[in-house]
Amino acid sequence: MRMYDIIQKKRDGIELTKEEITYFVDGYTREIIPDYQMSALFMAIYMRGMSKRETSDLTRAMIDTGEIVDLSFIKGAKVDKHSTGGVGDKTTLVLGPMIAACGLPFAKMSGRGLGHTGGTLDKLDSIRGFNTELSKEDFIRIINKTNICICSQSANIAPADKKFYALRDVTATVDNMSLIASSVMSKKLSLQSDAIVLDVKVGNGAFMKDLDSAFELSKQMVDIGESFGRKTVCMVTDMNEPLGYAVGNALEVKEAIDTLKNKGPSDLVELSLELGSMLLLLGNKVKSIDEGKDMLKEVISNGKAFDKLKELVESQGGDISYIEDTSKFSSSSHIVELISDEDGYIKEIIAEEVGKCALGIGAGRETKDSKIDLSAGIVLNKKVDDKVSKGDILAYIHGNDLDKIESIASRLKDSFKIGEKNKQNKKLIYGIVENNNIITY
Amino acid sequence: MRMYDIIQKKRDGIELTKEEITYFVDGYTREIIPDYQMSALFMAIYMRGMSKRETSDLTRAMIDTGEIVDLSFIKGAKVDKHSTGGVGDKTTLVLGPMIAACGLPFAKMSGRGLGHTGGTLDKLDSIRGFNTELSKEDFIRIINKTNICICSQSANIAPADKKFYALRDVTATVDNMSLIASSVMSKKLSLQSDAIVLDVKVGNGAFMKDLDSAFELSKQMVDIGESFGRKTVCMVTDMNEPLGYAVGNALEVKEAIDTLKNKGPSDLVELSLELGSMLLLLGNKVKSIDEGKDMLKEVISNGKAFDKLKELVESQGGDISYIEDTSKFSSSSHIVELISDEDGYIKEIIAEEVGKCALGIGAGRETKDSKIDLSAGIVLNKKVDDKVSKGDILAYIHGNDLDKIESIASRLKDSFKIGEKNKQNKKLIYGIVENNNIITY
Repeated sequence: MRMYDIIQKKRDGIELTKEEITYFVDGYTREIIPDYQMSALFMAIYMRGMSKRETSDLTRAMIDTGEIVDLSFIKGAKVDKHSTGGVGDKTTLVLGPMIAACGLPFAKMSGRGLGHTGGTLDKLDSIRGFNTELSKEDFIRIINKTNICICSQSANIAPADKKFYALRDVTATVDNMSLIASSVMSKKLSLQSDAIVLDVKVGNGAFMKDLDSAFELSKQMVDIGESFGRKTVCMVTDMNEPLGYAVGNALEVKEAIDTLKNKGPSDLVELSLELGSMLLLLGNKVKSIDEGKDMLKEVISNGKAFDKLKELVESQGGDISYIEDTSKFSSSSHIVELISDEDGYIKEIIAEEVGKCALGIGAGRETKDSKIDLSAGIVLNKKVDDKVSKGDILAYIHGNDLDKIESIASRLKDSFKIGEKNKQNKKLIYGIVENNNIITY
Repeated sequence: MRMYDIIQKKRDGIELTKEEITYFVDGYTREIIPDYQMSALFMAIYMRGMSKRETSDLTRAMIDTGEIVDLSFIKGAKVDKHSTGGVGDKTTLVLGPMIAACGLPFAKMSGRGLGHTGGTLDKLDSIRGFNTELSKEDFIRIINKTNICICSQSANIAPADKKFYALRDVTATVDNMSLIASSVMSKKLSLQSDAIVLDVKVGNGAFMKDLDSAFELSKQMVDIGESFGRKTVCMVTDMNEPLGYAVGNALEVKEAIDTLKNKGPSDLVELSLELGSMLLLLGNKVKSIDEGKDMLKEVISNGKAFDKLKELVESQGGDISYIEDTSKFSSSSHIVELISDEDGYIKEIIAEEVGKCALGIGAGRETKDSKIDLSAGIVLNKKVDDKVSKGDILAYIHGNDLDKIESIASRLKDSFKIGEKNKQNKKLIYGIVENNNIITY
């Protein structure tokens, strides 16, 4: 088999065989196929697309470059949750303890953030002592003890994906449905969970900018999951403004804690209930979505979810006094108010811009080696559809470097679009995609 | 400017600016832009194409990476001739002396062969002592003395082209009109000739397999030439069988010598008259194609073209006794007859296969570093439309390695398609493309 022939075939719009797909995935991962051939093939794939069968074979081949994580030590149904990435998305921190408090194990392998979206592991770093680098033995031990564990994804899960992404990122071949779908699913399917709930973000702060793309990506991911015999459900949810109010690591953890104490922002609460009830349903803990929501509300109001968070922190070496007293989180030396110059209603908050502003004051990683300022970030004071008057505070900028804060202030202000009241109320959930079934809300 | 943005733009079908084109041509040549980004861009260009303006800008940028050869030391019109590459194409060796004998300077920079098509310089190597590596001073001195010189193209002519080709060759991005046209024209336009005649080969032995592609490529090359203010004419000519009978270096030189002695094969004679008369017309030596043909026939029959070949060989250090007595050329130790098993007519001779068979017995280069067996090659005994009987000799295989000869014999036989007489007589010239004018024959 020759890489040249594979490139030529895809270039000419001919479907690749399973063997050809395995050949290039394996060959590139083992550094036998050079970057310049792989990038030409990515561009051909970008242009020609991949069939359902090809995308499934691609995912399979990517999984096979790495380790498969056996979860059979967990009794009963194993469910997994993943978000395609948004701004202010701290759902895992809320959902995990809720689910575990309902008696369903939550064994989560997470990643770090890059660019304008944050990563769960970075957020957890703001709790002193919290250790996300666990051995397999610790992972199993913790899950069996507390029903919940959030740790770093093994470097050896689908290593092809990491190499592919790095190359796609510099050759303008990221935004292709089949490549995105196989990237997400190769990592998810490397964990032997029984069901996967995917939160597919759509809007100005997400990978997918429009609903059609979000539903198409969802469909492709569901197809892949089902081709592996795994129950897969995608919820298409809004990212046309940050989720909740807080953007930035310690700030988001504090918001998650508030949410578990029944004082969370309505969108974060709603999303946690929607995703959580789906997880409970797929995990056979409840018979309906409504029953799931009731169960989740119960563990919030009776404090069991909050207690579960403390168990999680304690079992992974974190200082639980942070959870009990959130004033212990390191805070920024400057908190600058962002003031509105206009009267009207918030029509839109460009989430990607908010994410990039947070990045600009140190809350995220510009490159893989950047060090994060865990206390830095942005706390919105107004959300979409809120009324605003000239002089009102739009947001608080938390940072340790006044020059950096000043450098992003006007950009942050521009991300608030103020004008007439929107004709339609904003939506949080656009629809659900499951096998042979698309429900739009 | 960022290479990423350029790739993305072309990927999305947006025209690139002159500045963007210059940026990537220059950056890649100076090894600032990595292979993997360049190959992704080539694939995007392959898929999206390039506009007339982009192709012209690409050619300009490629020229500007290297040296421009000033030909102003030659008095009067400067004309250049180039073939896109065929099997058995020794036209330059015939045409050059004919043109020079007519009083029009023939200053030719040629290349070496790679793959199944031969190169003029390799052919000239079979004349003992012939030196094609000339200094600029020698080139000028020889032209001024004898009106003819054939030497190696300076390594510094359009170096971008060499780098581009090497990358395209391994990433399945060779067969794109704009990339082929700019590659040919960047080299041609780096020489400051006034007019260029391009012999665009079409058929089973050429880059262009069908007439539409050949005319499209011709049109693009003419457009580029004219955008530089150079008179450019393409002749679309047949490569559905090798040109003449001989394929292989020394064998082809001997056939060229025969042709200059008025004993050449009819197709080679006809092509030389067609291309030559166009060169004479563009070089203002004659007022019509017919007048040009008459002049060329005259220098053949009166021996002046043959004498000019001897002058060429002598001035470049070659042994002219080879020209006077072609038995001095090194000959192969084995000459094997290829016998027909069938009765009928030759319908087709797959020229590319003949070229590859010649390659297989050492007449060409598999890779850049291969050493050529100058005596090896194939001499056809039958051409398309010839009648053939079982037992007739189809061709003679000249080689020094019987194993190699045996290994190609059946493949060579398969390249002769024998059957009913073709309904239409074969054609040599399909048409001429010049500015705003396409004449099909």
